[in-house]
Parts: sequence; structure tokens; C-alpha cells
Amino acid sequence: MKLLSIFLAIFVIFLENSCNDMKQKVLNSDEMMIRMSEIGVDSVYLNEYLRILKEESEASVRLEPGVISIYPMFQKENPTEIRILEIYANKKAYESHLQTPHFKTYKTSTLNMVKSLKLIDMEPIDKNSMPNIFKKLDQTEIQKK
Amino acid sequence: MKLLSIFLAIFVIFLENSCNDMKQKVLNSDEMMIRMSEIGVDSVYLNEYLRILKEESEASVRLEPGVISIYPMFQKENPTEIRILEIYANKKAYESHLQTPHFKTYKTSTLNMVKSLKLIDMEPIDKNSMPNIFKKLDQTEIQKK
Repeated sequence: MKLLSIFLAIFVIFLENSCNDMKQKVLNSDEMMIRMSEIGVDSVYLNEYLRILKEESEASVRLEPGVISIYPMFQKENPTEIRILEIYANKKAYESHLQTPHFKTYKTSTLNMVKSLKLIDMEPIDKNSMPNIFKKLDQTEIQKK
Repeated sequence: MKLLSIFLAIFVIFLENSCNDMKQKVLNSDEMMIRMSEIGVDSVYLNEYLRILKEESEASVRLEPGVISIYPMFQKENPTEIRILEIYANKKAYESHLQTPHFKTYKTSTLNMVKSLKLIDMEPIDKNSMPNIFKKLDQTEIQKK
């Protein structure tokens, strides 16, 4: 039974670690940078622009630890009006993002497609409940029909 | 050793279930409703408005399974300009949200504080990677200084 107890103890520790892995990173909410980018795109290049933006957003979140979220959308009634919610761990993470190959590729290859660009710094109204606010989305499996 | 194996098997199943609990809900990305609300608030009532909105957002995400995310922000350089990113499981979830006591309280108590209101339906550019996009935020512990 001693051996059994040791095995069980090891498993409990493993279980805790596996589930706690997710909570190990700590962010300071006062340092976080929230940005809403408002981008007007030339309709001629819309599909190409969307493809490039999608690739760049995915790569940024996957490769850069300081890029917490990049969530690009377009207005349904005005599909050339792009809005991107961007969340960075801090200003340094944002500045380092601007130096990445994937951001530079996006920037140079879409330069002639973008007709207007506004970068608006935002402040979340409820800083502390931010993880809860997006929790459900992470816990949900999204299926396409 | 037989008993040990059985215990270990039970623990492995328990471990898997604990970690899979998070992925049990399934959403259809084609039914999801993404909304950007653009709200201009009378500066006289700004603090009161923010308090009411914060309460309503928190209650909506906590109490309504179909409210996936409500993320309220304001523009740093123009704090009376509120932007809310709202994500609902489907149109029914949105309509049911409008009938909740917390939404009705928000709506009636802020009616005289709101100077402008635009409800803009959005389409996410990368529907399938949505959970990944917000994953980091959920996995991060946010601390205030």
C-alpha cells in the first residue's frame, strides 16, 4: 500500500501541475496595452488584405508571448471597415511586435491597400475581470457548419 | 499490482476529464453574433455610467451561458467614448440577454446618460482560431500594482 500511496501522490501532483500550467503567467493590468485599430481598406484589395491580416494575427499570437490577443473583425454592412482589438502585455511587447518579420511583411505588403488608419488606445473598464470575460470563449469548441 | 493499476487507470481518466471539462461546450461559428457598440456618454454622468456598465457586463457573462464575452473599454484620449465588444452564442442568446433584469436595469438607468449609440454587427476575420486568440488572456493571471 505504501507503493500505491506514492504513485497516487505523484499522480495528484501531476494533475495539479497540468491544470495549473495555464495560470502560471502573471500580467500587470496597469502595464497592459489595449489598442483598437480602425482600418479602411480599398475594396479592390479586400480579399488579399484579409488573407494577409489573418496570417499576421495568427503568427503574432502564436509566436510572441507578449501579444495576448489580436482579434480582427470587419463591419458586416461595410466590409472594407476593419476593426482590430489588440492586447499586448506591455509597451515593450508592442514595440517588439513592430520589429517582427511577420508584422513587417504585413505592413509593407498592405501599404497600398490601406486607405485610412486610426490607432486608438483603449482602457478596459473592468481590468480585473478580464480573464473571466474571455474565459468562456477559450472553454468553447467552435465548429463550422 | 493489480489494485495499483486500477487506481492509476481511475486517476488517468479523472485527469483527462478534469482537463477536458473546459472543451465540452460547442459553439457554431456561423451562428455567433459579434457586436461592437459605440456609445457616447454625457461627461457629467461618466463615473456613474461606468459603474453601471461594469456591473451589467459582469452579471451578463456570469449569469447567461449564451453571453460569451462582453468587453467594455473607453478611448484613453476621449474617455466619454465607450466601445463594447460583445460576443453572443447566437441571435437567440442576444434576444434573451435583452430581456434579463440586469440588462433592463442598465438600459433604463443609463438612458439619460447616453448621448449617442451605434450598434455595429461585426464578422470575425478568423472564425476558427477565435478560441486560440483569447486563450492567452484566460491563461494569464492579471495583477494590479
